[in-house]
Amino acid sequence: MRTKRIPVAVLGGTGTVGQRFVQLLAHHPWFEVKVVTGSERTVGRAYREGVNWKLNGDVPDGVADLTVQATAPNLDVPVVFSALPTTEAKEYEPQFAAAGYAVITNTSVYRLAPDVPLLIPELNPDHTDLIATQKSNHGWSGFIVASPNCSTTSAILPLKIWDDAFGLRSVIMVTMQAISGAGYPGVSALDITDNVIPYIGGEDYKLENEPKKLLGRVVNGQMALADVTVSAQANRVPVLNGHLASVSVGVGHKPTVDEAIAALQTWQTPTVCQELPSAPQRTVIYRPEPERPQPRLDRDTGDGLAWTVGKVRQCPVLDLRYLALTHNTLRGAASGAILNGELLVVQGYIG
Amino acid sequence: MRTKRIPVAVLGGTGTVGQRFVQLLAHHPWFEVKVVTGSERTVGRAYREGVNWKLNGDVPDGVADLTVQATAPNLDVPVVFSALPTTEAKEYEPQFAAAGYAVITNTSVYRLAPDVPLLIPELNPDHTDLIATQKSNHGWSGFIVASPNCSTTSAILPLKIWDDAFGLRSVIMVTMQAISGAGYPGVSALDITDNVIPYIGGEDYKLENEPKKLLGRVVNGQMALADVTVSAQANRVPVLNGHLASVSVGVGHKPTVDEAIAALQTWQTPTVCQELPSAPQRTVIYRPEPERPQPRLDRDTGDGLAWTVGKVRQCPVLDLRYLALTHNTLRGAASGAILNGELLVVQGYIG
Amino acid sequence: MRTKRIPVAVLGGTGTVGQRFVQLLAHHPWFEVKVVTGSERTVGRAYREGVNWKLNGDVPDGVADLTVQATAPNLDVPVVFSALPTTEAKEYEPQFAAAGYAVITNTSVYRLAPDVPLLIPELNPDHTDLIATQKSNHGWSGFIVASPNCSTTSAILPLKIWDDAFGLRSVIMVTMQAISGAGYPGVSALDITDNVIPYIGGEDYKLENEPKKLLGRVVNGQMALADVTVSAQANRVPVLNGHLASVSVGVGHKPTVDEAIAALQTWQTPTVCQELPSAPQRTVIYRPEPERPQPRLDRDTGDGLAWTVGKVRQCPVLDLRYLALTHNTLRGAASGAILNGELLVVQGYIG
Amino acid sequence: MRTKRIPVAVLGGTGTVGQRFVQLLAHHPWFEVKVVTGSERTVGRAYREGVNWKLNGDVPDGVADLTVQATAPNLDVPVVFSALPTTEAKEYEPQFAAAGYAVITNTSVYRLAPDVPLLIPELNPDHTDLIATQKSNHGWSGFIVASPNCSTTSAILPLKIWDDAFGLRSVIMVTMQAISGAGYPGVSALDITDNVIPYIGGEDYKLENEPKKLLGRVVNGQMALADVTVSAQANRVPVLNGHLASVSVGVGHKPTVDEAIAALQTWQTPTVCQELPSAPQRTVIYRPEPERPQPRLDRDTGDGLAWTVGKVRQCPVLDLRYLALTHNTLRGAASGAILNGELLVVQGYIG
Repeated sequence: MRTKRIPVAVLGGTGTVGQRFVQLLAHHPWFEVKVVTGSERTVGRAYREGVNWKLNGDVPDGVADLTVQATAPNLDVPVVFSALPTTEAKEYEPQFAAAGYAVITNTSVYRLAPDVPLLIPELNPDHTDLIATQKSNHGWSGFIVASPNCSTTSAILPLKIWDDAFGLRSVIMVTMQAISGAGYPGVSALDITDNVIPYIGGEDYKLENEPKKLLGRVVNGQMALADVTVSAQANRVPVLNGHLASVSVGVGHKPTVDEAIAALQTWQTPTVCQELPSAPQRTVIYRPEPERPQPRLDRDTGDGLAWTVGKVRQCPVLDLRYLALTHNTLRGAASGAILNGELLVVQGYIG
Repeated sequence: MRTKRIPVAVLGGTGTVGQRFVQLLAHHPWFEVKVVTGSERTVGRAYREGVNWKLNGDVPDGVADLTVQATAPNLDVPVVFSALPTTEAKEYEPQFAAAGYAVITNTSVYRLAPDVPLLIPELNPDHTDLIATQKSNHGWSGFIVASPNCSTTSAILPLKIWDDAFGLRSVIMVTMQAISGAGYPGVSALDITDNVIPYIGGEDYKLENEPKKLLGRVVNGQMALADVTVSAQANRVPVLNGHLASVSVGVGHKPTVDEAIAALQTWQTPTVCQELPSAPQRTVIYRPEPERPQPRLDRDTGDGLAWTVGKVRQCPVLDLRYLALTHNTLRGAASGAILNGELLVVQGYIG
Repeated sequence: MRTKRIPVAVLGGTGTVGQRFVQLLAHHPWFEVKVVTGSERTVGRAYREGVNWKLNGDVPDGVADLTVQATAPNLDVPVVFSALPTTEAKEYEPQFAAAGYAVITNTSVYRLAPDVPLLIPELNPDHTDLIATQKSNHGWSGFIVASPNCSTTSAILPLKIWDDAFGLRSVIMVTMQAISGAGYPGVSALDITDNVIPYIGGEDYKLENEPKKLLGRVVNGQMALADVTVSAQANRVPVLNGHLASVSVGVGHKPTVDEAIAALQTWQTPTVCQELPSAPQRTVIYRPEPERPQPRLDRDTGDGLAWTVGKVRQCPVLDLRYLALTHNTLRGAASGAILNGELLVVQGYIG
Repeated sequence: MRTKRIPVAVLGGTGTVGQRFVQLLAHHPWFEVKVVTGSERTVGRAYREGVNWKLNGDVPDGVADLTVQATAPNLDVPVVFSALPTTEAKEYEPQFAAAGYAVITNTSVYRLAPDVPLLIPELNPDHTDLIATQKSNHGWSGFIVASPNCSTTSAILPLKIWDDAFGLRSVIMVTMQAISGAGYPGVSALDITDNVIPYIGGEDYKLENEPKKLLGRVVNGQMALADVTVSAQANRVPVLNGHLASVSVGVGHKPTVDEAIAALQTWQTPTVCQELPSAPQRTVIYRPEPERPQPRLDRDTGDGLAWTVGKVRQCPVLDLRYLALTHNTLRGAASGAILNGELLVVQGYIG
């Protein structure tokens, strides 16, 4: 349908998430990476030289020879995907929004800001209604949309489906998260080999607050958080990719296990998602085997964009239990943000 | 004090738990391994030959040259430590009890039988009151005492302390369990490398039921289960030793976090435990660091017999949260059973 | 070109290598799996039911509903790919060959038989000249061709290229092999976690003898082994897939390092290989980085069919050194055997 | 015998090797840690505060409250154990030697200096004869002695024994080295999980050169290197501790395998080693099982100070083969250097 690709920049394109953006956008039907920005050390060098490429395969041809630029709102593209470090994101993302760019960020800085959409297209595509409010609040010609934390992402879709079906009230979740979530060099092998680390800085807070926004509603351009209480405890485990969440929930109207499973299996993505080129064919995969989902076996399902869910059971203390898994650097980071970009195109915010 | 060691047998002494018994009893002040029984394949061979020794170091000298015997209640010792496979435990343990032996078992078969003490000396030493009932019920001259499952063990001590202090009502726990819990060869490296397996056969049931008995009371020789509801989900992680439990609890009288921690720190083991030679100097170690306990760093504390507890926090959904860890093949298996044996000596059931 | 696919059977199709055959042949342009044989336990059941599927994704549709058959030379296909256990391979493969089948085996039983081609199409496609001898020796209407051991495969291609260029005399190799090489359940996680096992049964023998045949010549229908001495020591490391070999070689005419690298880079596969649909675009990838090849980063190159080679250096003791890596269950097993099947089609032995 | 402990400093005491020194010296019979030096960031703080303690257990009591001092030759102790970073070692170690200190270093900077003893007490205790030369060359009142690289250490003892017995000529070795050898944070879990990295910066050079010095002789106060050629290729494997070396050697007088094993088993440490309190009871453990040595099973033998050797075989290309293993942070680093300190006491260079 689209005859010309939209030029985009990847901010912080030499880091681990930045590399994922570059890799995934290399053959994207709608976006084309025209600019990569990087740290002072890499500015002025060819991307191929400046990057310490950590993904399988080679640096994509179209990007390899781009000269790394400094991060500043003077780039000749209308859209930027941000994989900036936190302090830089805090500084530059509003500058880009003010200067008219569409900022699609994977960073945590503005996720909980009341006028920034925290977005998963299959979950809450209408939250982009906040964009008008955001522009008006700040007097920006551009805007910021954020994607949730990778661990929030892994658990959230069944919560959404059951909230719609049964009325979600409370959530206790324990995550087992992959080392790639910490970036590179990230976790020391001396710390995680033959071990579990029951702590990831800031993660429990994100897990306890982001769902309230993701499950909330935008009413008259204002964010109304969902009335749900979340208790979360994040663990790092010796797994390369794939965040697994073990979750118990309390609901308003307790279904049978069969009804709870049926709700997952019959759920349909919003119609708008059918137009997104990166959306997986099946968004929720329910596996009936008692030993699934497993990170290594299920993380790549749907090109790393599907949720694999299993072990739906009654919870003796709350109402229901389940396990869910997503690929943390794909659905939970770069691919998820690209899907947000696609949604913005379809909705006319970009293009 | 004791001038002569009590001769004991290890039933199923060639398996992984059996080897641990042999290793730990090699220099025990009160017990001396005089008999090892094994499967048909090994009967008649020297233990050194019959065993596929999987522990560090060598087969202890005193046991290496014992001839492996068949498992049958004709052994010339008054006490047997049982590490039998389930089906054999089911058959032989009652035969030994009937024949007058003190059977100290690590197996799961009779754990939930109402007249079999499910015993942790520091927790419920008075549950041995069930022994008289058990003998009377079956007309046995001997008896069986059981130790709990290794994963139940990892979580249980804070539950006991808080039950006494604040009245325990409900528990949601997620465990991250070591591969050694599955015995040898046990878990295939192809299954667990770079992976988590969210399923251990029968484990959730044990985790949801054993605490009710451990926290219950023996009244007039009868077992009264504790009125507590438990929801459990067991996971296998790529860790060699050490089971970690992430737990949320509801209590009758909600304390502050400081009070909850103080309850752990000021708790005293029952007086009788001071006489047990294997009891660790400190039974509960509370670690204030947010990233503890960790399996590799904490499993060997107190010679693998201590509980390391951390991350006591308010739970937004229930009342309190914590993480606890024990060594699954020591406190959670062989060492725990040996401690049971020591308690039986002090209480006069053996000797 | 080919309008109709050749029907084939997978012998031992429920095991780990058998599953790979089924997966890889699911969309093969020339072969179509029409029969799967399995052990007594699985015969008569649908493949979907009989198999304990261990690969990513699901059982391929076309094969899932096939009824597992007993292994016997009464199958209605002209070609069989064998992934049988050793004892069954020994019994059945000659029966199939006698009955007129083309037996393409991944097993070790007949690898060193003087009249069985030990075949890698890129290396020694003319060794199929042995087929006539084999048929004549045994009076068979069919034949057996074998593929080498997965660890031999990982090291062999640079040896071939340098033998042609510089005259190979001696080889000392140390391998670091993946756990998938041992099948399923294979290696116990208790053995290999945080460990290296410097022993794989029978592997050193294979590594020291198979190269002599692979590098040898077929003269007048007779196998002439290469005059090269090999010293090998195989190690198992905690890696899922990908065998890495560290090799020192002595040659007749010592080249410079640049010449040795150039020999690898300019080497061309035999012309016949261009017609094989599974042959990778590039067979040898020379990586100049000092820290390559690495199993996790390089094993999937060329759909798991390429050799990644690196670290070509002078050897202070012999003449040259290098490291090489291949995917052990793809190039080193199922994919390699399928490539052999394709060669046999092109050469007219099948079809 | 010794009534008063010798006060010592640990230079670079907050790093990983520095922590090992502190831990191992905590209860040393001859040495007492009176001073710990550290980086600018830690100077002036209590050691307990400045250190990021990574070893099991807690910071030893006697050292925990020491105030971390700057590294400068004004410390009130006669002996310093150096675990300094390379650039600081280069600068400060000569300053300390010039100022009269006995510098026992674990760093690589002066290992190959012709007048610095590269010392393993069991191997070449007489190399301390170089101390007089060193003092004279530089006009120092103190001196430096170095211990070899951890990977050189793992392979060296069988080389020494066979050199004495059969005349060593050439060595080809491939190492599989633990991640702890890279310090902390050291190796990223993203790099080494499910992987082997066939490169460790500078390691092959050390492995190829240090043996020449260790096996050499000191004649008239001058170092005469051994006439042996070494080819080495170092690999990092996903193992926490324990370096494993797979070695082929050429000798002048080729023994039988039994003779080669007997040479290892009957070898006696130099008499002076019997006086060293940290020396293990058995220095060489020969394991006859084909699958030994293994890092996890053998690294702690003899409190981490023994060499475990196995798989002595004929080498088809050179003469003999073997595998050897030592604990890289104990025998290969801190414990080895402490043993050097003990030797210097017995020889009268300290005390």
